[in-house]
Amino acid sequence: MRNLCMKVNYDGTAYNGFQTQPDGNTVQDFLEEAIYSLTGEKLKITGSGRTDAGVHAYGQVFNFLTESPIPLRRWCLALNARLPQDIIVTDAIEVPLSFHSRRLAKKKTYRYSINANRFPDIFHRRTQFHHPTQLNVAAMEEGLKHLIGTYDYTSFASRRSQKTDHVRTIFDAHMKVDMSYSRPGSDDQGIIDTYITGSGFLQHMVRIIMGTLIEVGEGKKSPDDIPGILAAKDRSKAGPTAVAHALMLWSVEYHFNSEND
Amino acid sequence: MRNLCMKVNYDGTAYNGFQTQPDGNTVQDFLEEAIYSLTGEKLKITGSGRTDAGVHAYGQVFNFLTESPIPLRRWCLALNARLPQDIIVTDAIEVPLSFHSRRLAKKKTYRYSINANRFPDIFHRRTQFHHPTQLNVAAMEEGLKHLIGTYDYTSFASRRSQKTDHVRTIFDAHMKVDMSYSRPGSDDQGIIDTYITGSGFLQHMVRIIMGTLIEVGEGKKSPDDIPGILAAKDRSKAGPTAVAHALMLWSVEYHFNSEND
Repeated sequence: MRNLCMKVNYDGTAYNGFQTQPDGNTVQDFLEEAIYSLTGEKLKITGSGRTDAGVHAYGQVFNFLTESPIPLRRWCLALNARLPQDIIVTDAIEVPLSFHSRRLAKKKTYRYSINANRFPDIFHRRTQFHHPTQLNVAAMEEGLKHLIGTYDYTSFASRRSQKTDHVRTIFDAHMKVDMSYSRPGSDDQGIIDTYITGSGFLQHMVRIIMGTLIEVGEGKKSPDDIPGILAAKDRSKAGPTAVAHALMLWSVEYHFNSEND
Repeated sequence: MRNLCMKVNYDGTAYNGFQTQPDGNTVQDFLEEAIYSLTGEKLKITGSGRTDAGVHAYGQVFNFLTESPIPLRRWCLALNARLPQDIIVTDAIEVPLSFHSRRLAKKKTYRYSINANRFPDIFHRRTQFHHPTQLNVAAMEEGLKHLIGTYDYTSFASRRSQKTDHVRTIFDAHMKVDMSYSRPGSDDQGIIDTYITGSGFLQHMVRIIMGTLIEVGEGKKSPDDIPGILAAKDRSKAGPTAVAHALMLWSVEYHFNSEND
């Protein structure tokens, strides 16, 4: 019996999220079907966490126990040959039997991509939220910095969250503005990518953070409102839930070296 | 009567190229239908040149004569509202009645995008040629440099080319390698973007140049073979025509300021 850990990229447009659910058509379902087709094993994989319907991933991580003797180096190509074009397994390693993708995840990074140019980008519209009107990016970044730390993020969690503890840690959060797709001399504001790294995220947390920051960028809220919104522990104080398709699970970090992690 | 000049971006995946042809479904057809729907004028637009089926454009240019009184600033949004999602008009200016998009084009730049990482990039596969095996990029660049200058490019033109004169000038040609989508510690070779700027291009010219350079990168040809291939003026000496979907018309340059250009 071996424990295999893999990295998977997916374009979430066509799927009902990562994790298996009654309606089917999830990334997990397709991965499990590909493994079944390859090894004949009907097994359940463990993902680092769910992603909502429409959300993408560059570096989602999952693991599973297998009795297959297939050598490690052949797994990626063999699975990719059995997966739809918009799901790609890029890495496979063997890990200790005790390894668990969800429980041992130490940090997750999400990227949220806003196209603040006047026109949508036809080549990236599946992964960008198009916001053609004025955004105060400096104010958004100031607001974002208030969210770094260890807090009860109830105000930024879906009311449907089933977690009892809403305390999480955001280790780092920053924005990058890429003007390379902007028209010279225009009022294009570039592609604004927000990266948020945390210990874990509540349901819709990144999307509610972004919906709130977009209101800050539009001048409807002030960056200085963020501490009060956090302290209120009340979902109604934050902004709307930003659209799913601009969100990407960017990476998941583990501390493989430490036995007790 | 006004002469309007516009810039258009399109994802060429779904179209039979830019220019109107008997089978229909071209970018030009959709632009002319959008103009008709907006102004009621059944007119013909003039593009800076054709692009093959499947080829994309970030900065294709076209112009047309119109009697419509619609203010300049309203054209882009009004046309985009009448165009499919994968065609977007991004700029509109008024030009002298004598302006002609094709005849006055001074320089065109194409980009050809090769994904030389082990796995395809799900978010860019519509615009990249995936080449997962070893490519000698330094040799490809050396070969590319031999193509800069003024030459008879018959070896790099489709046999179906109907032009009598195959002399063109390539002003600049270079490659950029982007490792930001590559997996650390892997043998991923990055995204290799080749930019070629010329006075004009023969049918399939950029794709045959790229097919030849890929053979150089694979070691099937030497960079020093390029001058001999050029001198032969024989299509059979060059490499195959590289796939269309990795090609993008990047920009078209005009000298608006000079009356006699």
